[in-house]
Amino acid sequence: MFKAPLKDPKPMPLKSRPSHRVLGIDPGSRSTGYGVIDTDGTRSVRIAGGCIRVNHLPWPQRLSRLFDGIAQVVAEYQPHEIAVEQLIFARDATAALKLGQARGAVLCAGLRENMPVHEYSPKSVKLAVVGTGGAEKSQIQHMVCLLLSLPETPSEDEADALALALCHAHAMGLPPRRRVAASWRDFRP
Amino acid sequence: MFKAPLKDPKPMPLKSRPSHRVLGIDPGSRSTGYGVIDTDGTRSVRIAGGCIRVNHLPWPQRLSRLFDGIAQVVAEYQPHEIAVEQLIFARDATAALKLGQARGAVLCAGLRENMPVHEYSPKSVKLAVVGTGGAEKSQIQHMVCLLLSLPETPSEDEADALALALCHAHAMGLPPRRRVAASWRDFRP
Repeated sequence: MFKAPLKDPKPMPLKSRPSHRVLGIDPGSRSTGYGVIDTDGTRSVRIAGGCIRVNHLPWPQRLSRLFDGIAQVVAEYQPHEIAVEQLIFARDATAALKLGQARGAVLCAGLRENMPVHEYSPKSVKLAVVGTGGAEKSQIQHMVCLLLSLPETPSEDEADALALALCHAHAMGLPPRRRVAASWRDFRP
Repeated sequence: MFKAPLKDPKPMPLKSRPSHRVLGIDPGSRSTGYGVIDTDGTRSVRIAGGCIRVNHLPWPQRLSRLFDGIAQVVAEYQPHEIAVEQLIFARDATAALKLGQARGAVLCAGLRENMPVHEYSPKSVKLAVVGTGGAEKSQIQHMVCLLLSLPETPSEDEADALALALCHAHAMGLPPRRRVAASWRDFRP
C-alpha cells in the first residue's frame, strides 16, 4: 500500500476564508507527481506534495499502485477539485498507451469521490506559473518554490503537480501572487 | 450508475467441478465489452456479457462510468481472473491516449479486487477461438456463438470480450471445445 508523506508540520495559515483546496496531478507511467494547495484568492500555500514512483513495478501493478496512491491522497487531504495536465500529444502510440493508462488510473481515483476534474494544457500551466508558455522544468520548479514560499525546491514531478494546482487557482479568478509571478524575468537559472 | 444486465435466467450448468470463472474485457474509449464465462476444462458457458457504452458522455465522466461498470460486474459475478487484450499499437498517439485511459480505468476496477490480470494479443485470441490469427469480427462473433452455444449472436464488443475469456481458458490448459474451434473453416459468413 502506498504511504503518503506526512503533512508539513506547520503549513502557513491562510489569512482569509473560505479557502479552496486543489489537488494537482502530473500523471506518468513511471512516476506520478501530486501536489495539494490551499488558495484563498490572493495567496496559495502547499499542504502536501510528493511523487508516487512505480517504475520498479510490473504492469498492471503500476496502475493499481497509482490508483491506491492518489485515492489515499484524496482521502487524507479531501481536496475540492482536481487539476490535471491535458494530454494532447505523446512521443509515439506506445508511449501514449502507457501514459493514457496511468492517467486513467489516477483520474478514476479522484472521480470516485465525485470531484470536478479540470484539464490544463502544458502551455497554459507554464503561462500561469512562469509567465511564458515555453518555460523549462527548472523554471517551473523555481517559480513554484517562490509562489508557495517553499523552504526547498520540490522534485520535477511534484513541482509540475503544484504548478497545475496553481494554474487552476489562477483560472478560478484566484490569481496566485501575480506580483511574484511577474518577477520571473529576473530569474536566470 | 451503470446497471449491469441481469444474469441469463438459466445458464447452462457445468458437468464437472471445480469451475473457473473468467472475466474478459475489451476496453474502448467509446464502448467497452465484457463477458463472464465459467470453464471446467472441457466446456465453457456464458454467465453474463454486455457492453458499457460511454460515447454520449464527456471526458472524464467516461472513465468514471467505465470504472463503475466493470467494478459492478466484478462485484456481481465474482470472477477469479481477468483477461484483457494486450495493446500493442493504435491508430495514432491521440487515439492511443484515449484508449489507454479507458484501459487504465477498467483495469483499476478489477485490480482493486486483487484479481490476476492476463493479457493476450489480438492474434492469439483469434487463433484460440477461430483458429486463424487473421480472423475478422464476424468470424469471432460466429465462433463465440458456437463455442458457448449461445441462442443469438452477441454484439461485436461482447463477442470480443467473451473471446478473450475463452482464450484465457485455452491458455490455462482448458481447451474450450477444440472440435468446434477446428470446424471454423466450414463457416463462410
